[in-house]
Amino acid sequence: MNLMFLGTSAGMPTRFRNVTALAVQEEVGRTWYLVDCGEATQHQILRTKLSLNRLAAIFITHVHGDHCYGLPGLLASAGMSGRVDPLTIVAPRGIEAWIKSTLQHTTLYLPFELQFIATESLSDFHIGNVCVDAIALSHRVASYAYSFTEVKVDSRLNQEKLTTDGVPRGPLWGEIKNGIDVEYEGRWLRSEDYLLFDNKPRKIVVGGDNDRPELLADACRDCNVLVHEATYTADVAKKSGESFGHSSAEQVAAFAESVSIPNLILTHFSARYQGDPAKSPSIEDIRKEAADFYKGNLFLAKDFAHYALQKSGELRLTN
Amino acid sequence: MNLMFLGTSAGMPTRFRNVTALAVQEEVGRTWYLVDCGEATQHQILRTKLSLNRLAAIFITHVHGDHCYGLPGLLASAGMSGRVDPLTIVAPRGIEAWIKSTLQHTTLYLPFELQFIATESLSDFHIGNVCVDAIALSHRVASYAYSFTEVKVDSRLNQEKLTTDGVPRGPLWGEIKNGIDVEYEGRWLRSEDYLLFDNKPRKIVVGGDNDRPELLADACRDCNVLVHEATYTADVAKKSGESFGHSSAEQVAAFAESVSIPNLILTHFSARYQGDPAKSPSIEDIRKEAADFYKGNLFLAKDFAHYALQKSGELRLTN
Repeated sequence: MNLMFLGTSAGMPTRFRNVTALAVQEEVGRTWYLVDCGEATQHQILRTKLSLNRLAAIFITHVHGDHCYGLPGLLASAGMSGRVDPLTIVAPRGIEAWIKSTLQHTTLYLPFELQFIATESLSDFHIGNVCVDAIALSHRVASYAYSFTEVKVDSRLNQEKLTTDGVPRGPLWGEIKNGIDVEYEGRWLRSEDYLLFDNKPRKIVVGGDNDRPELLADACRDCNVLVHEATYTADVAKKSGESFGHSSAEQVAAFAESVSIPNLILTHFSARYQGDPAKSPSIEDIRKEAADFYKGNLFLAKDFAHYALQKSGELRLTN
Repeated sequence: MNLMFLGTSAGMPTRFRNVTALAVQEEVGRTWYLVDCGEATQHQILRTKLSLNRLAAIFITHVHGDHCYGLPGLLASAGMSGRVDPLTIVAPRGIEAWIKSTLQHTTLYLPFELQFIATESLSDFHIGNVCVDAIALSHRVASYAYSFTEVKVDSRLNQEKLTTDGVPRGPLWGEIKNGIDVEYEGRWLRSEDYLLFDNKPRKIVVGGDNDRPELLADACRDCNVLVHEATYTADVAKKSGESFGHSSAEQVAAFAESVSIPNLILTHFSARYQGDPAKSPSIEDIRKEAADFYKGNLFLAKDFAHYALQKSGELRLTN
């Protein structure tokens, strides 16, 4: 499973980081999913190998513009690029209303169908080889995290157990290997009883804007990676009184430590941290603060940073 | 008067050109106007010295997304940057409805007032030192050009005539110089009868999408510069049958020649012309076709190209 950050700035784009968008891809070169779509996400995509024709679904965390204003242009360009396959948009209800209003007022005709699913009612949504769930967060407006959990993981036949139980080598073994329960001499054999899984299903949780990371405790207990905003350092949030529903690096890091998340990727940084890293405030302040509270693998996202989550659960920054 | 192109690609952004936007500025460093606002116009502005606090008005030519999808993000960022001054948006009525829908559905609060003026009813709109008029064009949806005409031009007192007419040197001369009509010994003296103008008011016409350049004949007869789309070369438009309400380079060039426009800037090029200029089709095809039909000063716009229209009426590319 792969993550490519297309935007990592909070609220406004800067010369160095665009507003929020994240590509999630099961395998490089295959279909992919987009989480949030700030303005100019399509411009960022032009600088990658991602294709709008292979985009299978868009997940929007909340209705604020820095997470959705790139939708109309991305949809229009997908249409002009010849897309005809339906596109699923999972988003809070306001987004469907806004997109429909946009199509109408700007006379935008799309040569493909939009299939809206309201995040408010999302449950065990299956697409490709992942199951997606939404977790309600705390922000100025309704905001959600999305968890992506691998459905089918690599497996091997437990030949020893098959032999012990007297199941003859042959077509039956093939069916069991493919996850099919079979009948043999009046007995029902459950496929999963005869399969060995070297790895657990991978799971990635991607949060929207949120000032209470602890709301993700249940979703994160078995996850490999949490992607979460860390808009400010704690001192800036306190001093300026402008947390506005956002998390500090300290908050997120302490939460991640408390539920033993192995990999934490921080993103959605206020513009104030995007200047010279040798001066303060800088992105290094976010890093230091988080590192004080979190002892796992800590990453600070950059635009176009690409992470590969290995089958083993190990997360690697690959560029 | 100055023009800075912020986007020159038709329909979709490419890696080389953004979708349409043009900054019009009476003087460098002063307030400015924006004509069209394709997605990521605010991103382009970040790469210039233009400030969202000094943007006095936005003029939208038509409702198609490649000319307006940058509005919500630009307005949001102006608000986050502390703008409090009202902002005028001159646009076809659909834009006001769309922006109001966007504010509502994405819960966007702006700390400044939006003052909408419908292009459909625009007439002799004065702002700064320019008068702006709208000219209806021909496209798939209602589309307009905007003409920017200088109001007050530099002048000198006609001292010889004042002396001949017996008007005594003193405060009266000052008032006449400032454009005020005055009474002297029972006579009304009209200021403009005693002023000498070295230059004519400058005038720039900026077209929206349009397949009938001749609709601009009246507006262009006394203009210094016409900015007009040339989406295709004539052969491509004919072969592909996809003119879709756009002009070819030949059409615009022949029109500009027919009404003796001294300076023609072409823009809004289809992505097909944006590849290697050594191969065909390329932007050089547009240039050659236009040059065959137009003998004035021909320019092909690029993103961030800056043009200065001198008081003399001469147009200079300054970067």
